[in-house]
Amino acid sequence: MKKYTEMTNEERKLELEGLQKTYKEMQGLGLHLDMSRGKPDATQLNLSMDMLQQNPYDLIYTRKHTDVRNYGELAGVDEAKELFADLLGLKMENIIMGGQSSLALMYDTVIKAYVLGVYGGSKPWGQQGKIKFLCPVPGYDRHFLITQEFGIEMINIPMLKTGPDMAMVKEYVENDPSVKGIWCVPKYSNPTGVTYSPETVEAFAALKPAADEFRIFWDNAYFVHGFREKDDKLVNIFNKCKKYGSQDMVYEFMSTSKVTFSGAGVAVLAASKDNIQFLTRQMSVQTLGYDKINQLRHVKYFKDVDGLKAHMQKQANYLRPKFDVVLAALNSSLKDAGIGDWTNPRGGYFINYDGLPGTAKRCVELCEEAGVKLTPAGSCFPYGIDPEDKNIRIAPSYPSTPELYQSMNVFCVCQKIAALEILMNEHFDEKALINKKHHKKKISELEPSKD
Amino acid sequence: MKKYTEMTNEERKLELEGLQKTYKEMQGLGLHLDMSRGKPDATQLNLSMDMLQQNPYDLIYTRKHTDVRNYGELAGVDEAKELFADLLGLKMENIIMGGQSSLALMYDTVIKAYVLGVYGGSKPWGQQGKIKFLCPVPGYDRHFLITQEFGIEMINIPMLKTGPDMAMVKEYVENDPSVKGIWCVPKYSNPTGVTYSPETVEAFAALKPAADEFRIFWDNAYFVHGFREKDDKLVNIFNKCKKYGSQDMVYEFMSTSKVTFSGAGVAVLAASKDNIQFLTRQMSVQTLGYDKINQLRHVKYFKDVDGLKAHMQKQANYLRPKFDVVLAALNSSLKDAGIGDWTNPRGGYFINYDGLPGTAKRCVELCEEAGVKLTPAGSCFPYGIDPEDKNIRIAPSYPSTPELYQSMNVFCVCQKIAALEILMNEHFDEKALINKKHHKKKISELEPSKD
Repeated sequence: MKKYTEMTNEERKLELEGLQKTYKEMQGLGLHLDMSRGKPDATQLNLSMDMLQQNPYDLIYTRKHTDVRNYGELAGVDEAKELFADLLGLKMENIIMGGQSSLALMYDTVIKAYVLGVYGGSKPWGQQGKIKFLCPVPGYDRHFLITQEFGIEMINIPMLKTGPDMAMVKEYVENDPSVKGIWCVPKYSNPTGVTYSPETVEAFAALKPAADEFRIFWDNAYFVHGFREKDDKLVNIFNKCKKYGSQDMVYEFMSTSKVTFSGAGVAVLAASKDNIQFLTRQMSVQTLGYDKINQLRHVKYFKDVDGLKAHMQKQANYLRPKFDVVLAALNSSLKDAGIGDWTNPRGGYFINYDGLPGTAKRCVELCEEAGVKLTPAGSCFPYGIDPEDKNIRIAPSYPSTPELYQSMNVFCVCQKIAALEILMNEHFDEKALINKKHHKKKISELEPSKD
Repeated sequence: MKKYTEMTNEERKLELEGLQKTYKEMQGLGLHLDMSRGKPDATQLNLSMDMLQQNPYDLIYTRKHTDVRNYGELAGVDEAKELFADLLGLKMENIIMGGQSSLALMYDTVIKAYVLGVYGGSKPWGQQGKIKFLCPVPGYDRHFLITQEFGIEMINIPMLKTGPDMAMVKEYVENDPSVKGIWCVPKYSNPTGVTYSPETVEAFAALKPAADEFRIFWDNAYFVHGFREKDDKLVNIFNKCKKYGSQDMVYEFMSTSKVTFSGAGVAVLAASKDNIQFLTRQMSVQTLGYDKINQLRHVKYFKDVDGLKAHMQKQANYLRPKFDVVLAALNSSLKDAGIGDWTNPRGGYFINYDGLPGTAKRCVELCEEAGVKLTPAGSCFPYGIDPEDKNIRIAPSYPSTPELYQSMNVFCVCQKIAALEILMNEHFDEKALINKKHHKKKISELEPSKD
C-alpha cells in the first residue's frame, strides 16, 4: 500500500470513498464504546477484591495499638507511611497519607500554596499577582484544569523522549520568579509513556529557581505500573536533590487508584521532612485525619513492597494484552498509510497517537459519531488547545478485548478519513509549514492564548 | 454545706487546706485520663463493626449498576445521597457526599469561597480585604481554627438558651458587608448542648445579608445524637428559607463520624440545588469523587433512615450512663458550693461547665497536673480567648465509666480549689464587676483582640 502522503489526489479520493463506505457500515452497528479515560474495567478491579475480604477485626489496631476507627493519626498510620516510604525509597517522616485521591491531594496542595503559602516561601502564591506553571505537553488534562481553575498561566514545555525539554524548563524556572511550579508525571507519563531519564531527573534536582515558592509536582501515578518484562527505571528525585540541597522543591504524589480501587484507594504525598511538617500543620486545621481503616486495609493486604509488586504483576498481566490489541491494530491498519506515530510504552495507561496536523479534532468527532468515545482532542494540553491539533490519547484499559478490537477498527478508519481530508485540503501544505515553524518559535512566544 | 461565696475567708482557708490535701493524694495516683475530646471509646466503636462484616461482593454495584470501585459519581452514589437527604428532610439534588470528614468539607468550602467565590457572589472572599465571621460562643474550637487560618476576623456572639443572640447576628449580618459567614451547631451545640429554637432558625432564614457572599455554616454534627427519651426538635432551616427565598444562604454539614467510625465514616454537604451545582463544578476540578465503596457500605448497612436511627439508639444507650456519671459528680460535689453552672443536654457529646470568672485556666491546669486532661481553657472561643476565663468543656464519651468517676473526682476538687483561690484573691470582686460590665458592651466593642 502506498503512503497517503505519496498518493495523488485521485488515489486519495478513491481511498476515501472506500473508507466512507466502511464508516457508514460501522455507524450502523450502534456501538457504545468508551476509550476516553485511563480507568480499569470490572475484571481488573476484581483482582483486588481479596483486600476487602479481610476480617475487619484484624483492621482495628495499628502496631502501636492505635484504634484506626477513631480520630487521630493525622498524617496516617505508621505502617502505611512505612510501606509507601519503602516503595518510594524514602523515610516515614517524608510521608503524609491522604484520602483516596492523589488528584485531590494535589489540588489541596495548590490551593493551600495559593492562600497560605509554602514552606520557606515569602508570600502565598495568590498574593503575587500573575503566576505561572510549566506544563510538559502532551500531559495530564486534570493537572492543567487545576492550574487553570486558579487563573495560573500555563506554559507549554515540549516532551522529549527523555522527559520535558529541560533547557526550556531551566530557562523559565531560573529566570522568571513568577514561575511557581511544574506538573510532571515522571514515569510512564500520561499520555506519552515516557519515563524521565536520569539526566532529566538530575536536571530537575539541580534547578535554582528564581522563586522561593517554586515546587515540582512529581505525580508518580504509574510508578509500579510497568506491564512488560522490562520495567523502566526512574531515578529517585529526592536522592538527586540531596546533592543540590533542593529537596524542599519537590512534592511527590501517588495513589493506589490503579493498584487497588480507583474509587476507594489511598493517596500519598511525599516530601522533605520540613515540607511534611509544614503541610501537616496546615492539615491539622483541615481535618482530624483521612480514612485510616482503609489505610490499614491496604497495608495488611500488601504486607510489604514485595507484596504490592506481586499484586501489580496481576494487573500487568491483565493490561498487557489490551495494549497489544491496540498496537496490533495501529500496526496493521495505519503503519503503511504513514499518517501517524504512536508510542509503545512499557507501562502506564495510555498510548499516545500523533496524527497529521489538523486531524485530531476531526478524528475524535468521527469516532464519536460512530459510537466510540475518545478523550476530547486537545485535552492533553493546557486550555484544551493542541497547537497542532494532532494529538490523541488512547486509553486501552476500560473496554473489553472484543470492544477494543471494534474501537480500534473505528479509530483507524476515522484516522484515515481525517488524514485524507486534510491531505486533499488545498491549504494543507501551508498549514503544515506554519506548524513546523511553530516548533521553532522562541519559548517566549510559545505561551498559548487563553480563549 | 455553706456556699463558697458566703464563706468567710477563714472558712475558705480551712476548706482549701482540706482540698489541697486531697489533691496531693490524687496526684499520687498517677492517673492518665483524657476528657479532652468528644470522641467515642473502643466499645462504642464496636457497635458499628457489623457494617464492616458485609460481603464485599454486595458492595460493588449501585442500584443503577455503577461500579463503585471505579472512578465516577463525583457527588456520591444516589442511594447515599437519598439516605442523607431523607434524614435531613431534603432531596437528592441537595446533597454532595464527601470523604470521611465533615470538618474537611467545611474547610474545603471556606477555602474555595476564599479563592474561587460562592454561587451568586460578586467576588471571592479573599479579594475583599478584611472579612469577618460570626462565632456563637462558646462554640466548636475547630470551626474557629479554620477561620483563624485564613485571617478571617471572628466576632463573638453570645449563646442564649435559644441559640445565638439573633438580634446581634441580624445587626451584624444585615449592616456589615464584610461579614461573610457564621458558624453554627444548631442541635446539641458543641459545647452548650443547646438546640436552636424554631424562632432562632426562622430568624436565620429571614436574614437579609449585606453581603451577597454570606453563608451560614450549619454544622448539624449531632442531628441524630439524642440520648434521652425525649429528643430535641430542630426545625429544617431549608424549609424556613423557602418562605424567604434565602435557601442559597445555607451550607449544611453532617457526617457519620459519631454514627459509625470517627476515622472512617462518610460526610455530607447539603445545600440548595444551585449551590450544589456550583460546588459540584468546583469539585470536578479537584477529584474524581470520594470513596464510594464506603458510601455503599454505610447505605447497605443502615438501609434507610429508620435503620440509621435504630443504630443511633445503641449509641445513645451506651453514652447516656457516661453523661449520668458526670452529672451525678457535679451535682453531689459542686452544687452546694455554688461555684458553677452546668448543662444537662439531651444529646451531643458535651457538658458545658461555667465556673466563677477567672477559674477555668487554673482548673484545667490543676487537672492536668493530677493526670486528667481537659480541653484547654478558652478552646471554645475564637483565638482561644474566653473573655471571662470561666468556661470548661467536659467530654464524657472517651473515658470508661470507672475512669470517668476518677476524672470527675479530680475535676470537682480542682474546681473548688480554683474557686477558693479566686474568692480569696483581694482583686476578685473588681474583676467580677469588669466581667459583668463586659456583657453589657455594645457589639461594636465586643470583638476580641488578636493576640
